[in-house]
Amino acid sequence: MPRTRVHNLNISLDGYAAGEHVTFEEPIGGAERLFEWFDGRAIHGVDGVDDPWTLDRALTSLWGQGVGAEIMGRGKFGPQVGEWTDDGWRGWWGDEPPFRTPVFVMSHFPHPTVEFGNGTSFHFVDGAPEDVLQRAQEAAGGLDVRIGGGPSTVRQFLEAGLVDFMHLMIVPITLGRGVSLWEGTDGAEAAFAVESIGSRSGLTHQLWNRIEPRSPSGQR
Amino acid sequence: MPRTRVHNLNISLDGYAAGEHVTFEEPIGGAERLFEWFDGRAIHGVDGVDDPWTLDRALTSLWGQGVGAEIMGRGKFGPQVGEWTDDGWRGWWGDEPPFRTPVFVMSHFPHPTVEFGNGTSFHFVDGAPEDVLQRAQEAAGGLDVRIGGGPSTVRQFLEAGLVDFMHLMIVPITLGRGVSLWEGTDGAEAAFAVESIGSRSGLTHQLWNRIEPRSPSGQR
Repeated sequence: MPRTRVHNLNISLDGYAAGEHVTFEEPIGGAERLFEWFDGRAIHGVDGVDDPWTLDRALTSLWGQGVGAEIMGRGKFGPQVGEWTDDGWRGWWGDEPPFRTPVFVMSHFPHPTVEFGNGTSFHFVDGAPEDVLQRAQEAAGGLDVRIGGGPSTVRQFLEAGLVDFMHLMIVPITLGRGVSLWEGTDGAEAAFAVESIGSRSGLTHQLWNRIEPRSPSGQR
Repeated sequence: MPRTRVHNLNISLDGYAAGEHVTFEEPIGGAERLFEWFDGRAIHGVDGVDDPWTLDRALTSLWGQGVGAEIMGRGKFGPQVGEWTDDGWRGWWGDEPPFRTPVFVMSHFPHPTVEFGNGTSFHFVDGAPEDVLQRAQEAAGGLDVRIGGGPSTVRQFLEAGLVDFMHLMIVPITLGRGVSLWEGTDGAEAAFAVESIGSRSGLTHQLWNRIEPRSPSGQR
């Protein structure tokens, strides 16, 4: 049965996974240190990677396996707020966005679909997490759906009981402020078996596997 | 550049990776407990696996990624010794051997090729590790070659300086006797960066990444 998965979500020791104000200069809103800690991701599998196959690489390599669509918040696509303007923005990723699948960008404002040659297409959708997930599942063709972030988007799906698997990377830094993955949650871990693994790099990986059946809103 | 890799090699605390006498009843030669410890392998990737995605599964899932051929000792193919007889033996794995690539079985005695419908074919070859590796690399079509075991075969390739990556799973049991992975080696670790990771299951995973250039005999 297809799953809804979160991968490679970097969070600080104080629970922040992004800064508060994304700009064109600061895609993570000032929390770029979360990503500077470790640059050895291998999101499309380790087998093409010439660098050492570390634990960090082995775990980040799960990101793309068996995923047929992604859902992201609009702040992950771009720093604009309010109505979209015709500014030619096509995301942060140049001509080769790493997704290679349909991507559903949650936004209250309409925007034409943005397509790339490598299989990536951005579709802008409004709706509750359940509805957006259903559209993404239809597009995923039987494969899994990844919730790509940012943290408030992941939290929305967590709170709706829609996440089956989550891989967090706890980075040994404090940020003091930002967008918290955990804000307002209480017992987020209750529906999961959580495994924590220390890495030589200083990261702590966590694998969250759902143990409870989906809530009714999450049934497919 | 293609690598030569070892994956999911279970060894006991006292260094044994197989029993001494493989029989039709005991494919691991009496050391079956090494494999009973953990049955949650996911050798062809985790994405088809409905069970929880644990660390153990994530690491065992590297087994099949990017591999185009395997090399194994004859004891992994079957318990027979000496000249092969026409006994109809086609390996331990039924009609669907998990390899799905050419497999080179090291044997001093000739044996016709054994083929299966799922891409697995067993080729029986005699020669030094360097020569067998070269044949396997040609068959792998640019992908990596896996050294599939047993332990004395892995040790042969290790001693020849031909192994680029090795994933060991140290099982928290003692066996007292058997075929040791380490017998006769001294400083096997010297050419590698070794990362050790404890798992909730009790296994210790080790990732060995070669840091020294290949020995001349291993140059391709």
